[in-house]
This record gives sequence, structure tokens and C-alpha cells, in this order.
Amino acid sequence: MSHNNNPPTAVDVIIEHYEDNKMTGIVLVTRKNPPFQGMLALPGGFQEVGETLEEAAVRESKEETTLDVELYDCQLRAYSEPDRDPRAHVNSVGFVGRATGIPIGKDDAKKAGVFPLSQIPKLAFDHNKRVREYEEWKVLSK
Amino acid sequence: MSHNNNPPTAVDVIIEHYEDNKMTGIVLVTRKNPPFQGMLALPGGFQEVGETLEEAAVRESKEETTLDVELYDCQLRAYSEPDRDPRAHVNSVGFVGRATGIPIGKDDAKKAGVFPLSQIPKLAFDHNKRVREYEEWKVLSK
Repeated sequence: MSHNNNPPTAVDVIIEHYEDNKMTGIVLVTRKNPPFQGMLALPGGFQEVGETLEEAAVRESKEETTLDVELYDCQLRAYSEPDRDPRAHVNSVGFVGRATGIPIGKDDAKKAGVFPLSQIPKLAFDHNKRVREYEEWKVLSK
Repeated sequence: MSHNNNPPTAVDVIIEHYEDNKMTGIVLVTRKNPPFQGMLALPGGFQEVGETLEEAAVRESKEETTLDVELYDCQLRAYSEPDRDPRAHVNSVGFVGRATGIPIGKDDAKKAGVFPLSQIPKLAFDHNKRVREYEEWKVLSK
């Protein structure tokens, strides 16, 4: 198995932020590093050997936002177009979870904040597509 | 990005086999190589850099069964437990498609054949779990 010939996989996490049992929006981070440095993005990052994608989603959320995310039993699609990351061919699997508390940007995130779904700006990578996919899932799961 | 530290991803394909517009079963292959040498399994294999998971699913199906598979717009879950492949940590994403014609085992497949859903034996890896997931999807998609 030549790993150099197999794309790695990253996770994107839609973190529903709750306050007094009401959803206030989703958590976005400002990217500290290239590519898309300084742009808003979904929290996430690379899955490492030895962890499930779900574990990677919880770990990356914690590292970038300090929040403890409780994942729903929901996987969004695996995106695998070779050009979706300008660095290299990287797959991405989406997850949805919920968290409470104030997000604080750490690690690869310069900042973190809560954004109402009606006010999502242009995001890094294909993350706007991911947010639309989440919104469709949200309607269907009601 | 250290690829040595990121699991590669494989695809498993549920190929619905049709004859005279009637589904006769799904296609299984007999594995030519370890692990699970000689066992029945779903067709599939590793995604390579430069191809989408969907492209990998079509390519691997063709290589192992000679069939031209038309994928449905359906992704089954990404399985990512570190111990699901005895060789190394390998993710797997499932796909569902349909094909006609006689499957012939090639490449990594010693044999290929069509099995009615009521007669699926013990399969390699976690492929029985994948078949159950497909059956649930089949019920829901009706």
C-alpha cells in the first residue's frame, strides 16, 4: 500500500452552537495559515492514523475552538474532487454536532465565532457547499 | 502534510445485478490475495491520487468484475475504525450502483458471481455490515 498514492482525508465540522437551549448559529474559525489564510472556514483538519473520522472531528473542533462537541449520528458526504484543496488531493468528510460555551480560536485558528445561518459569508475551500448540504440535512432530519 | 500519518481510503461497491430489468442479486468477488484470501467480498479497492471516490468505485468494479457500473447518487457511510483492515488503518466509503452482463473475476478477484440478497455468506472485512447498511438504504429509498 503506497500511501503517497492515496489521498489523505480531512473532516469538516458543522458545530451548532446552543445558548439557553436555543441554537444561535454555527461556529466558524479564521484560518491562521495558508491556504485561504485569514478567511473564515469550518473547523476541521486531517484524520490521523489510529483515530476514526468521528474522533478526528471531535479533536479538531476542540483544538481549533476549545469547544467540546457532541456529534450527532450524521455523516455528511465525502468530497473527493482532486482540486478541492490547492495543496494536494485531500478528501473531506462532513460531521454535525452541538456545543455550548464561548468558542476561542486556538491552534490553526486565529479566531473563532458564532455566525447565524442567515449570515454565513464566503468560506474557504468548498465549505459553503458543506453548509448548504448541512441545511438540507437539517430540513430532512426534522 | 505527512501522508504516512493519514489513513488511505478504499471504496466498497454494492453492484446490483440486473437481467431483463429484474434485479437478480449483488456481485461478490473471491479474493485472490491476503488478507481474507479466498473469501467472498464486495468489489472495491484503494482510491488513488487524482481520482474521486466515485471514479475509484467505477474503476475497481470494472477491474475486478469486468462490469460497467452505473453509480446511483448514493454514498454509504465512511467506516474508519483503525482495526477494520488487518494490514493497516484504512477508511472505506460505500457506493451503490447497477450493472448488467456476466461478471468475470479479474485483477485482485479470483472469481466473481451474483448472489441473491437472501444468500449472502460471511464476507471479508466488515462487508456484511456494509450489505446491511445497503439494505436499510434500499428500504428508505423506495
